[in-house]
Amino acid sequence: MKAARLHEYSEHISPESLKVEEIEEPRISDPFDVILRVGGAGLCRTDLHIIEGQLEGAFGPALPYVLGHENAGWVEEVGSAVSNVAVGDTVITHPLPTCGLCLACRAGNDMHCANPTMFPGFVTDGGFAQLLKTSARAVVKLEPTLHPKDIAALADAGLAAYHAVKKARDVLDPGTRAVVIGAGGLGHIGVQCLKALTKAEVIVLDTSEAALDLAGDLGADHTVRVDGEQVAAVREITEGLGAEAVIDFVGENGSAEDGVGMLRQAGSYYLVGYGGMLSVPIINIIAAENNFVGNLIGSYTDLAELMALAARGEVRLHTSTYPLDAINDAVADLNEGRLRGRGILIP
Amino acid sequence: MKAARLHEYSEHISPESLKVEEIEEPRISDPFDVILRVGGAGLCRTDLHIIEGQLEGAFGPALPYVLGHENAGWVEEVGSAVSNVAVGDTVITHPLPTCGLCLACRAGNDMHCANPTMFPGFVTDGGFAQLLKTSARAVVKLEPTLHPKDIAALADAGLAAYHAVKKARDVLDPGTRAVVIGAGGLGHIGVQCLKALTKAEVIVLDTSEAALDLAGDLGADHTVRVDGEQVAAVREITEGLGAEAVIDFVGENGSAEDGVGMLRQAGSYYLVGYGGMLSVPIINIIAAENNFVGNLIGSYTDLAELMALAARGEVRLHTSTYPLDAINDAVADLNEGRLRGRGILIP
Amino acid sequence: MKAARLHEYSEHISPESLKVEEIEEPRISDPFDVILRVGGAGLCRTDLHIIEGQLEGAFGPALPYVLGHENAGWVEEVGSAVSNVAVGDTVITHPLPTCGLCLACRAGNDMHCANPTMFPGFVTDGGFAQLLKTSARAVVKLEPTLHPKDIAALADAGLAAYHAVKKARDVLDPGTRAVVIGAGGLGHIGVQCLKALTKAEVIVLDTSEAALDLAGDLGADHTVRVDGEQVAAVREITEGLGAEAVIDFVGENGSAEDGVGMLRQAGSYYLVGYGGMLSVPIINIIAAENNFVGNLIGSYTDLAELMALAARGEVRLHTSTYPLDAINDAVADLNEGRLRGRGILIP
Amino acid sequence: MKAARLHEYSEHISPESLKVEEIEEPRISDPFDVILRVGGAGLCRTDLHIIEGQLEGAFGPALPYVLGHENAGWVEEVGSAVSNVAVGDTVITHPLPTCGLCLACRAGNDMHCANPTMFPGFVTDGGFAQLLKTSARAVVKLEPTLHPKDIAALADAGLAAYHAVKKARDVLDPGTRAVVIGAGGLGHIGVQCLKALTKAEVIVLDTSEAALDLAGDLGADHTVRVDGEQVAAVREITEGLGAEAVIDFVGENGSAEDGVGMLRQAGSYYLVGYGGMLSVPIINIIAAENNFVGNLIGSYTDLAELMALAARGEVRLHTSTYPLDAINDAVADLNEGRLRGRGILIP
Repeated sequence: MKAARLHEYSEHISPESLKVEEIEEPRISDPFDVILRVGGAGLCRTDLHIIEGQLEGAFGPALPYVLGHENAGWVEEVGSAVSNVAVGDTVITHPLPTCGLCLACRAGNDMHCANPTMFPGFVTDGGFAQLLKTSARAVVKLEPTLHPKDIAALADAGLAAYHAVKKARDVLDPGTRAVVIGAGGLGHIGVQCLKALTKAEVIVLDTSEAALDLAGDLGADHTVRVDGEQVAAVREITEGLGAEAVIDFVGENGSAEDGVGMLRQAGSYYLVGYGGMLSVPIINIIAAENNFVGNLIGSYTDLAELMALAARGEVRLHTSTYPLDAINDAVADLNEGRLRGRGILIP
Repeated sequence: MKAARLHEYSEHISPESLKVEEIEEPRISDPFDVILRVGGAGLCRTDLHIIEGQLEGAFGPALPYVLGHENAGWVEEVGSAVSNVAVGDTVITHPLPTCGLCLACRAGNDMHCANPTMFPGFVTDGGFAQLLKTSARAVVKLEPTLHPKDIAALADAGLAAYHAVKKARDVLDPGTRAVVIGAGGLGHIGVQCLKALTKAEVIVLDTSEAALDLAGDLGADHTVRVDGEQVAAVREITEGLGAEAVIDFVGENGSAEDGVGMLRQAGSYYLVGYGGMLSVPIINIIAAENNFVGNLIGSYTDLAELMALAARGEVRLHTSTYPLDAINDAVADLNEGRLRGRGILIP
Repeated sequence: MKAARLHEYSEHISPESLKVEEIEEPRISDPFDVILRVGGAGLCRTDLHIIEGQLEGAFGPALPYVLGHENAGWVEEVGSAVSNVAVGDTVITHPLPTCGLCLACRAGNDMHCANPTMFPGFVTDGGFAQLLKTSARAVVKLEPTLHPKDIAALADAGLAAYHAVKKARDVLDPGTRAVVIGAGGLGHIGVQCLKALTKAEVIVLDTSEAALDLAGDLGADHTVRVDGEQVAAVREITEGLGAEAVIDFVGENGSAEDGVGMLRQAGSYYLVGYGGMLSVPIINIIAAENNFVGNLIGSYTDLAELMALAARGEVRLHTSTYPLDAINDAVADLNEGRLRGRGILIP
Repeated sequence: MKAARLHEYSEHISPESLKVEEIEEPRISDPFDVILRVGGAGLCRTDLHIIEGQLEGAFGPALPYVLGHENAGWVEEVGSAVSNVAVGDTVITHPLPTCGLCLACRAGNDMHCANPTMFPGFVTDGGFAQLLKTSARAVVKLEPTLHPKDIAALADAGLAAYHAVKKARDVLDPGTRAVVIGAGGLGHIGVQCLKALTKAEVIVLDTSEAALDLAGDLGADHTVRVDGEQVAAVREITEGLGAEAVIDFVGENGSAEDGVGMLRQAGSYYLVGYGGMLSVPIINIIAAENNFVGNLIGSYTDLAELMALAARGEVRLHTSTYPLDAINDAVADLNEGRLRGRGILIP
């Protein structure tokens, strides 16, 4: 089959970063294995970091290997123990095939699985290929109205946004306010999830007018340009009180310092984006009785729920599609800021 | 190996109800299979109902088969995909080996699994045998300080009691009251779970003085004889207000009519025992804003937590042990009311 | 001031059931008193039952007194300790002014207050009058965009529907189904609350095509005529599984028998309407691990949240308005089935 | 009456910091006022900070005024609207008399009240006096078995510890571990609350052997000396995994840096003590999906629950009592480290 593989790390992205080549097809070796014909595979900024070698220490896959961790497609073949999907089903994949045996798995906390069985696109071969091997525990069957290329990017970016919003929903009863920091790839899904799961007033911050326009189109009640006055702007919108929830999809360049200043007494801060530090005087956390909540991808159940939202048309992605042969163009477009919406490879 | 099998249903329990015989040993056939050397297997009133044919319609196993659904022992052999236990480990078994793929499993609700893979003692061979085949998804590894024969009966009776008490804990903050109806096999574990998980005042009802004495020894704050005045007695103990939680381990012979009369405004009723009807005027449920909560066995996580309590000495069982050859004596003793505590077979 | 008072109970509703007359204006006597100029007062089927004497035993007010327990208006005068509203504010009233001191009040459970200070329209003078005396603890300040006559009926009927839906939301994640039994006064608000708070698939049952049409207009995903085949219809819509939540706004004439048959494994049943019995074999409740949840009006916080929904246009009422002088016409129209939507008195 | 007042701030504690003198008795002026005969008033390190002027900016009371914010006693006189206590009742006081009208109060979140009516010992006269004026909304009636002097210090220090532990209970099911940083005034109550509300394994850290001995006597499963190796020690006790909950009663001198290193994947950190910074790379918070939870005193409901624990003998305080005339001795003893347990003034 045809696949795009990384043969060596390189400091800089180049037109030969990934090599499109013929490789052997994956085979069923475990009773829970599922092989998909890939219908769409999302290209993510993390893929650039992988190419550059930044994640070698964290995952250390044997090179060469196939990238691609946001995958959807049609079931091609299943192992003997697979009962949740059948050949021909349309499915999206959870990024982490989990063991199903550890206490985290048994409580539904997939991201804390003690013994994941694979990790496509990070440790094992991913979805920038015609076929992908994953596990029955990582596939969610889709409504036939959904096409893999339209929802593939929900597998990771969308899941992370949904997971955080679902936690925030607990503090976002009618009459409350939610601040979204960053209306990019994750943030613009976060805005849609907030509109779907809550009736909170949604305030969106971004440095880009285009991103704010999109947020407005998706139903944001207020959009605020990050121009140095954003904390004051949010406090004014919230009548000086701040917001019950701040969801930070940026996590660097001062977003947390800003965001903490937008929190209401007893408000909660949801961390999704990263890169910077969370630094707050403890007396302030106590005096305002605030919470800070980390968010790591999401559970299988979260992904199933997100797909239910997608099937109802509540969450949509802006995408640009590329044939697999053009993957280095897609990588270059993403790296150089030319990519509009999420890049999706069609093998 | 030696095993006690049921060859045919019989209206009445007899000394030949089960036949102790040599049968073939179970073999690993699935990568998640686990074979145990049984260290203790609880005998349950349900086993009498199975012998009498009352559950044929519900489960319809192929006869002959081995009974025994409350099992603990040591791991003898494991399939290729088993990562949570190893040969030699002491384990207790959850009664229902689940698929790990359906949405109920993914959310941790084992008892609602859409595709259980076995059901030892009900549909597949159970634990009244030297060896038992179950699944990696059904075994909880025990502290080495616990012996299978001492905790086997927690696998089902104990799990059901713990599951209900854990739900009730949410309404049992300090200063509240809990009523336990029935201090028998399940109820006396329920009292211990209530004492372990809450600081509520515990009021125990039973028709038997001996059961009430045991409840008192286990820490019940009040014991009330069921003698026709029990509702008035509970209302007096609760200053006329009733209890925040009533846990009904009986579920027949008027227990629910009584129990509803002991509920406080906004109180919750937990149903564990069964046999009778729940019949309440809806206006009463609304005027008092009560909840009625069904309880079906418990999750794998519940069982793991219960084992943690047992390892700390918080939950203890009163047992009488029998060698496997004496199983028909054990059955007769249970059937004729001579069995003290829970009967445990030692193969 | 002008008010409509009940002077004596009468078996049958007549054109003289209530007497519109001049009575003394209420006066501030407690520091938390609030006097409203009534802008709209909802007429409720309960008012008919009061006139007929059916609630005399429950409340026993001294006759004559002013009916009307769904009230909204403008603040006319406040006691010395009132800090949450000021003269001129538009407000809606919670039906039960509570003590603020008992443990139920301290935990936010208004409907379980041990010492309510008034009970307008039931025990003390209600809102079928130009002025109404209530308490600071019973008034929710409204957005100036809301007019009392448009939202008065949310004070009681709307609050009860919202309260039940808010509990049900906990089991109504995306991908689930909710059944609403009864799309009348409460039910049609319930449908709107479900659409606002959840993305569950909403299935509405009623005996009336007109009610089902309204439910469809309000966003119900499926409507089912109650014609004897309704249980089968719901099971078909839910692929044989039943619904995660059933909200019963009827509570009589077999609604509960039907509704229980529509519950999914582990599903929850919310009781709002009443009149009949809940009668279920306990074994069924346990085997399906179902919950039954009573609902009594709602909390002050619930009312504040419902008003936030109303201010966003998420909940709308169909009303017919009458001047106070025409109250007996309104009563007759309601009693004889001529009233379209909720009847609102404008004093 | 006799009272100990602060007349001026002074940089250093002196034997004349507070002046014991005759002042006018408080009088009922509001219908919710409650006047207590003080039976015990806790002396807190915060009182030293008040004397030194460190809280002038935060509260700015008019001098002279009576200190003392941990008060218990007997009801001497009540206002006309008080229905929850009567003259002669034994009561403990919540530190913040709240308005009962704002949305925070209506949801039971006392510490976030928008309009507190008094603040004894901080803004209005406190409990270092024979009589204290507070509000019906701030008094919890006690079991007659409790004496004010024995539980007064639970009013603030105990409440803060209970509030944090009650939140932590949600993640402390049987089989989990909790780390307590600091076994001093708050921490030793926290250990007792953990033992009462959970069956988690409790690991206590302190710099003082005496504090660790006390923690051991109170039921700590492990005690760890803070000697530079404490993080490694906790990781060893937790089999390299860390703890599900860390409760930090210190909040300075590196406690948070240490504590974060003791957190398990998906673990939660409860902040009670303060003084330092919380500084964590956001990537770490996300990769481990940790939570950080601020804690501000506690609610009225929390205090009522804590009193129920105290009445059952589950929480005990170590105290040293002083007559009111000796208050400057008590202040000196506290300031100079001679005070054993909590200092209690007996007016």
